[in-house]
Amino acid sequence: MNKIISCVPNVCEGKDQKFIDSLVEKLNVVNGLIVLDVSRDSVRNRTVFSFTGPQEAIFEAGLMLYRESLAHIDMREHQGEYPRIGALDVFPFVPLKDATLEETVAMSVAFAQKVAEEFNIPVFLYGESARFPMRRYIENIREGEYEGLEQKLKDPRWKPDFGPAVFNPTSGATVVGARYPMISFKAILDTSDEAIAEYVSRIIQHASGGLAHITANPGMDSEHKVAQITVTISNYRAMPMYRVLEMLRVEARRFAVAVRKVEMIGLIPEIVFIESAFYYLGIQDFSFDKILERKIQTQLDEKIQPS
Amino acid sequence: MNKIISCVPNVCEGKDQKFIDSLVEKLNVVNGLIVLDVSRDSVRNRTVFSFTGPQEAIFEAGLMLYRESLAHIDMREHQGEYPRIGALDVFPFVPLKDATLEETVAMSVAFAQKVAEEFNIPVFLYGESARFPMRRYIENIREGEYEGLEQKLKDPRWKPDFGPAVFNPTSGATVVGARYPMISFKAILDTSDEAIAEYVSRIIQHASGGLAHITANPGMDSEHKVAQITVTISNYRAMPMYRVLEMLRVEARRFAVAVRKVEMIGLIPEIVFIESAFYYLGIQDFSFDKILERKIQTQLDEKIQPS
Repeated sequence: MNKIISCVPNVCEGKDQKFIDSLVEKLNVVNGLIVLDVSRDSVRNRTVFSFTGPQEAIFEAGLMLYRESLAHIDMREHQGEYPRIGALDVFPFVPLKDATLEETVAMSVAFAQKVAEEFNIPVFLYGESARFPMRRYIENIREGEYEGLEQKLKDPRWKPDFGPAVFNPTSGATVVGARYPMISFKAILDTSDEAIAEYVSRIIQHASGGLAHITANPGMDSEHKVAQITVTISNYRAMPMYRVLEMLRVEARRFAVAVRKVEMIGLIPEIVFIESAFYYLGIQDFSFDKILERKIQTQLDEKIQPS
Repeated sequence: MNKIISCVPNVCEGKDQKFIDSLVEKLNVVNGLIVLDVSRDSVRNRTVFSFTGPQEAIFEAGLMLYRESLAHIDMREHQGEYPRIGALDVFPFVPLKDATLEETVAMSVAFAQKVAEEFNIPVFLYGESARFPMRRYIENIREGEYEGLEQKLKDPRWKPDFGPAVFNPTSGATVVGARYPMISFKAILDTSDEAIAEYVSRIIQHASGGLAHITANPGMDSEHKVAQITVTISNYRAMPMYRVLEMLRVEARRFAVAVRKVEMIGLIPEIVFIESAFYYLGIQDFSFDKILERKIQTQLDEKIQPS
């Protein structure tokens, strides 16, 4: 299986363990579906599912999640420390391995249309699937949250991409689209001065005029009493990790502060490391086909499924 | 297929295309075998095969190569610009992906024993499979080459690991063992002064007291008129690529010379790049399980072959 598209739907329920268990049970019997992870967060009152598989399996699992979530969750009663706009808040499609962005976008749009048809709720396309620049960033779509949605849907600029421009009080709306996997890491600084982390964060992140596709949050590692910066890269193909880290190092150097170490957060696509290695090693034109494991896997795949 | 052991046997025949074609034909019908590459070299008069597959497939293919090579090649008539000791000169087993060195060594030893039993020729274990320090390096086993083999076999220190200590004039002896994949790259220097490449090569390579597991050959890139160093790492787990390149850069800096670029030669295991990325990015304790594609592949394998 060379081509992998994964999905990470966010359901607005993180307290009811029984309900989440019932969803996992239903996911596990979908033919061909691979459930990668289930992260329930009771503080934010949301659960993030992560799965992959062939398109039929993804669609079947996805529509089941909508059906169950819309039946179970009443947004009029939902509380949670995280911006959200609907019971099944966001359904991202993520290209991995040899999957292209184009086919991931196409899959997400086809799925968004099915959701609108089957459940008759407003569906917004975001990320790489967005049809309007404003909708590229989910923050814009979520602005005003569920509570502001009724008003927002009256604004013609916020006509949904699919489904009716009608406020559904129990379900809210939903956001569907393709995005790159998010890369997150912590850079632990060689200082206990949090102000330095704040300064550097401000310099490097997109919101304050730094690098595109970057958010940076300063903080303290309370155990070791050192300042740290948590960085998230929303499009690692356009903004490779080495470039972000090197700018962070350059700005920290103004205070004679070094990066003591870097800790990766969550799962990371291998291409992130391979591209960084190429930069530092001075490799300018290596073909990925010359990575041994890829060549072998390609030949195995050809042998197993002759076309 | 997560666990991959590949083999790269060297046959002492690089001129007779018909014979090589007949070997490839026979390899292609071995059940489960994946032929990765066949490199015929008429100047050195040898052909290097590269294949992988389950153990039965590897053994069947390997024994076939011995049978055909010993029947076809008469070492009394063999000429070639490369040290060699027998008709099937060396049969390396290489651990890739999740294959451990231990199981690769075990497989190579079992295979060596079968070769001795079936063909009654002297078999030396080398590389990670060697039972004596002297035999670790194939150069030591090949010293004196085929022409010196009769004499060498009379020396009790050169009793074969398997098979008789008897000189076989048509077949010679053979060398079998496990070794890491060799990593080769060219460092193109920012100078046309070949003497700098010579100096740096001498400093970094093992033979003249530099880094273990390293050979370095200075030369000129005739097209761009710049000096270059071709480096080979024989054990990249013990001597990661970034360490070699950084020592090379440090020594070149003595002459204010930079590495203009690095060109990788042949197929490279991805771990080489990932470990180098960890070094440069300052990642100290990342678990390989957190590489997305590995996690997914593991779960796919579990799903497909429930144990």
